[in-house]
Amino acid sequence: MISPAPSRLFTFHAGHTGDWRIKDLRPIKGSSLDIATHINVVDGADLEPFANIVWSLRGITSNERYVTTAEKLLLVDTQEGLGRQLSTCAALIPIRKTAAWWSLTQDERREIFEEQSKHIAIGLQYLPAIARKLHHCRDLGTDEPFDFITWFEFKASDESAFDSLLTRLRSSPEWDYVDREVDIRLQ
Amino acid sequence: MISPAPSRLFTFHAGHTGDWRIKDLRPIKGSSLDIATHINVVDGADLEPFANIVWSLRGITSNERYVTTAEKLLLVDTQEGLGRQLSTCAALIPIRKTAAWWSLTQDERREIFEEQSKHIAIGLQYLPAIARKLHHCRDLGTDEPFDFITWFEFKASDESAFDSLLTRLRSSPEWDYVDREVDIRLQ
Repeated sequence: MISPAPSRLFTFHAGHTGDWRIKDLRPIKGSSLDIATHINVVDGADLEPFANIVWSLRGITSNERYVTTAEKLLLVDTQEGLGRQLSTCAALIPIRKTAAWWSLTQDERREIFEEQSKHIAIGLQYLPAIARKLHHCRDLGTDEPFDFITWFEFKASDESAFDSLLTRLRSSPEWDYVDREVDIRLQ
Repeated sequence: MISPAPSRLFTFHAGHTGDWRIKDLRPIKGSSLDIATHINVVDGADLEPFANIVWSLRGITSNERYVTTAEKLLLVDTQEGLGRQLSTCAALIPIRKTAAWWSLTQDERREIFEEQSKHIAIGLQYLPAIARKLHHCRDLGTDEPFDFITWFEFKASDESAFDSLLTRLRSSPEWDYVDREVDIRLQ
């Protein structure tokens, strides 16, 4: 790889100052995260760029795990990136999946993820309104408190659509394998 | 997860003393690693437990990426673990795959990995003689020099079978996506 690769590692710092103000932080499953008022998103793994950090979570973007070629074409056609001017709302949702999930083979996980739970098909229905970026934590090391961190951005008027997206995913068979989830809303 | 999980992170230190003596270290593709005489395998990420380390590579065991349920049953039935008394030979083979590989979707990678290259089917033919353990590096961070580290153990009399296994894999379509590989033989 000759050209410098874009950063894949991101750190989410919660504290008392920052770019995104926390409107709401609530545990959906398992233990919560400590209360803070702001989130800063930082490229790389620098763990103490700000004073008074309450907690920090790290995640790394990576290759696709479940999306097929046909699904990827649909997604690429429909989705928009982060940073849209009208996207004044965001959500940070870290989740952890059970040991039972991780012991499944690829075909078993794909079957639950899409054939049973329609994870990709449901997400597609909310594009391009809800932009998302997935970060993986599980293989960063052995001490990570979550397996994934997803960052979402949308217009204030799309927050109820976002709630509906989450309700549908959380009632799917895939979510039987989620044992910790925290829902953090930002603006 | 109530019970303590077994360690998933391992560090491979090359130096001038250690449990495994390096018989041969040669670059197969891309740049080599510096010459050393011994390798120590350590649980966890401790980067300086020994004096005079020449280089260290880290990897983490993780969930299955390509194996199907049917293939897993065959593997579990046939394979044996590391640490067999008669396995006095080992090999440490770090590889890196190209950006083109990582931009493929799951179904495209599986198609190349197994339907075209028979990676699992070929490996099965050398079980239980050749025991193996795969470590992932790519999502440990952004500075890892390799994407995978595989550790193999076998009897001295099986080294020519091991060579044949490698020759077959290296001539497969999957290996067109390998841009760095170093082959380190140990005893």
